[in-house]
Amino acid sequence: MSPLNVTVWNEYRHEKVDDVVADVYPDGIHVVIADALKQQGFSVQTATLDEPEHGLTDDLLSKTDVLIWWGHMAHQDVQDEIVDRVHKRVMEGMGLIVLHSGHFSKIFKKLMGTTCNLKWREIGEKERVFVVEPGHPIASGLGEYFEVPHAEMYGERFDIPEPDTLVFISWFEGGNVFRSGCCYHRGAGKVFYFRPGHETYRIFYQPEVQLVIKNAVKWAAPSGGPTVTFGHRPDPLENVG
Amino acid sequence: MSPLNVTVWNEYRHEKVDDVVADVYPDGIHVVIADALKQQGFSVQTATLDEPEHGLTDDLLSKTDVLIWWGHMAHQDVQDEIVDRVHKRVMEGMGLIVLHSGHFSKIFKKLMGTTCNLKWREIGEKERVFVVEPGHPIASGLGEYFEVPHAEMYGERFDIPEPDTLVFISWFEGGNVFRSGCCYHRGAGKVFYFRPGHETYRIFYQPEVQLVIKNAVKWAAPSGGPTVTFGHRPDPLENVG
Amino acid sequence: MSPLNVTVWNEYRHEKVDDVVADVYPDGIHVVIADALKQQGFSVQTATLDEPEHGLTDDLLSKTDVLIWWGHMAHQDVQDEIVDRVHKRVMEGMGLIVLHSGHFSKIFKKLMGTTCNLKWREIGEKERVFVVEPGHPIASGLGEYFEVPHAEMYGERFDIPEPDTLVFISWFEGGNVFRSGCCYHRGAGKVFYFRPGHETYRIFYQPEVQLVIKNAVKWAAPSGGPTVTFGHRPDPLENVG
Amino acid sequence: MSPLNVTVWNEYRHEKVDDVVADVYPDGIHVVIADALKQQGFSVQTATLDEPEHGLTDDLLSKTDVLIWWGHMAHQDVQDEIVDRVHKRVMEGMGLIVLHSGHFSKIFKKLMGTTCNLKWREIGEKERVFVVEPGHPIASGLGEYFEVPHAEMYGERFDIPEPDTLVFISWFEGGNVFRSGCCYHRGAGKVFYFRPGHETYRIFYQPEVQLVIKNAVKWAAPSGGPTVTFGHRPDPLENVG
Repeated sequence: MSPLNVTVWNEYRHEKVDDVVADVYPDGIHVVIADALKQQGFSVQTATLDEPEHGLTDDLLSKTDVLIWWGHMAHQDVQDEIVDRVHKRVMEGMGLIVLHSGHFSKIFKKLMGTTCNLKWREIGEKERVFVVEPGHPIASGLGEYFEVPHAEMYGERFDIPEPDTLVFISWFEGGNVFRSGCCYHRGAGKVFYFRPGHETYRIFYQPEVQLVIKNAVKWAAPSGGPTVTFGHRPDPLENVG
Repeated sequence: MSPLNVTVWNEYRHEKVDDVVADVYPDGIHVVIADALKQQGFSVQTATLDEPEHGLTDDLLSKTDVLIWWGHMAHQDVQDEIVDRVHKRVMEGMGLIVLHSGHFSKIFKKLMGTTCNLKWREIGEKERVFVVEPGHPIASGLGEYFEVPHAEMYGERFDIPEPDTLVFISWFEGGNVFRSGCCYHRGAGKVFYFRPGHETYRIFYQPEVQLVIKNAVKWAAPSGGPTVTFGHRPDPLENVG
Repeated sequence: MSPLNVTVWNEYRHEKVDDVVADVYPDGIHVVIADALKQQGFSVQTATLDEPEHGLTDDLLSKTDVLIWWGHMAHQDVQDEIVDRVHKRVMEGMGLIVLHSGHFSKIFKKLMGTTCNLKWREIGEKERVFVVEPGHPIASGLGEYFEVPHAEMYGERFDIPEPDTLVFISWFEGGNVFRSGCCYHRGAGKVFYFRPGHETYRIFYQPEVQLVIKNAVKWAAPSGGPTVTFGHRPDPLENVG
Repeated sequence: MSPLNVTVWNEYRHEKVDDVVADVYPDGIHVVIADALKQQGFSVQTATLDEPEHGLTDDLLSKTDVLIWWGHMAHQDVQDEIVDRVHKRVMEGMGLIVLHSGHFSKIFKKLMGTTCNLKWREIGEKERVFVVEPGHPIASGLGEYFEVPHAEMYGERFDIPEPDTLVFISWFEGGNVFRSGCCYHRGAGKVFYFRPGHETYRIFYQPEVQLVIKNAVKWAAPSGGPTVTFGHRPDPLENVG
């Protein structure tokens, strides 16, 4: 069986202009995530905002089993045409994993149909991520919870549709909670939102976070179901009358 | 308690140009639905595509508890700005009931995040609508199923997110099935998709169909929950550190 | 319209043998809850473990729209026959609201099909209950969250089926989270689990807690759907062959 | 990676006393299912009602990844102690696949918490099984629907909790519909109910049916999540006070 094709997409701007960010992710967040996934045996590509077509050519997308999305300060610079292209591929069955501040990306909002808004705070507080659905494959290899020592807080109400399956809930030191691992079927594709992650904390180097992303790739990969067709069916399947 | 404010929106074009349609719904589908709801004690307004702002002014929408949506041949003529206005009101808590061919309206697709596509056939076959969640208030007053003698078929795969609650499943004489009553929370609003209905059959005069729409209005009405706020919360609710 | 008939069931033992409990709930927890509901205009009965048939006679249950359940130290003393009787009524459409330690009652475990186990701690820590589904009627009248100053902690993993709708998530000072407001359709009935509450804290006097219980009664009440029938149907609804 | 351990359980009585049944399944339904799964590379055991402990010893269950359950005329002869043993293993993570008339087995009813009742008819009518969630792995390799030429009808209302994911809906020639493929998380385990199957039709020889069972085994297998612990946690995870 050939390995899954994963494309890691990163806005990749903050790392180029901010020393603090560059210090943590000198080659960009996408490279850290891509390296972790390569070690798991996936076939991994990267793509970034400032490449032509944001790096998300028809050719690359058509070969991508699972797309990972990270962005946080330039969501508006993503062209609608490319968003539609990604959306179409999710409808066809491509998996999509949206990380942390990607909650406000055009593609996630388009897939959810809601504002995807939330409360946030950036004081480096502790986060504890609890597994609430231990039988879900995305929880594979985890303990009952894991901790992120310093995190940007995201707090409820998180304005999303109720997940098909809620896998994680986060506790925050500053007094908030958040639905941190949310699974959705959309079209023939599978979408996973994962809260942890940040551009100035080393969260994407954390083994539990990398493990969840690996598990999510496997879960979100196309599963070979029927090619769905739509439209006019003038002839009934049974005699009518 | 003052009565719920319901606005019935209709594309209202087909009735003006097609004798067959005009014969069934001489004043427009919206009028038939509005009249049925008025008899239930609701305060009912109507609005149509060719009015300024499609009749959906900020003022009207701000007073609307539940909006009912019917359209089938002019979805593309609905301005994006008005779609966004309706969407914003659903996020704030306004209920939305989408009828039959409204599955392909801009507002429903925007709220669902999927193509909302399906299979269809128009040979006047029989439909039998089964209640699969008898404890749901939208099933109030119904029997175990009801029949639509002549219907346009809609068939699965219906490309929607799995409903929060699935209330009805339809059987079709021609050999298909369909998820015909689908409840969703979106933002602070509630959305109900109801399949039965058509412009050339007398389905909107049928007592069971009118009953379901009445029930859905009550279910979808704003329920007085918290006003949700979003954004930066620099001060934690608890001491951190 | 006649008022809803609510029956508040209480184990009612701890209050009779423990001074600390008796000091907080001198007439029993059921009386405090019943009084709060009476003030809302409901018709309220109470029933307790040590009455004949635990007070849950066929006659009382047949008239009960919504049953509220509290127990914490004598779950095993509830007779299986009475549990089956309550279960049958839920299948028929009676609402059931299970409070706090009622998570370990026979009736709740029977309805959920899982162990309903959890982690717990009793050091009087702070709880903050967040509304995560603001459009749900059980959140009516609440703010974005409410606080319980001193609570027994219940922590995830809470071994329940994923709720049909998750309305509340609790944050605990000691570092845990919990799904605190869980809605289920079971049979023709509706079930709501609500976490807050305790026998030695004044939680059932708290206005937000009383408000949630009131909202839940309205939500869980039978909604007049079809009487469901089962079994052999030798004659098809359509001609076969 | 060692192959998944699958145990196929069959009541195995009808085959021994009824010539018509014996003619279709001479060695028992379990053997046909087991043979199909062996060809897929699974490690397969069988167990039947009239063996000691119904063949479901602690030892066998502890090694079983996924248990497949078939029964239809002797549900009451399954000992409660064995039901509890299977239930405990599902809570721990063992997968369970319940076939056709297994809907009325003690273990399925215990896991669902409802009556699991339905309407049925046995006139050999046609069934058409539609995929409604094409991205789910249980739909892998299927077309948009498949047909069972002669089936016993099961009709809604099917008295089950709303599935976590609904994968299939069946259309019946005689005019009914049914939720035919239902996924549930229960405890740390995964449960799949699959409607097609019968003791006097050759349904379990049908390639699509065997394919679904294979897919379901993979989906329901334990996924290596956290070992969940419960009970008293006197020490908070964070300082309280």
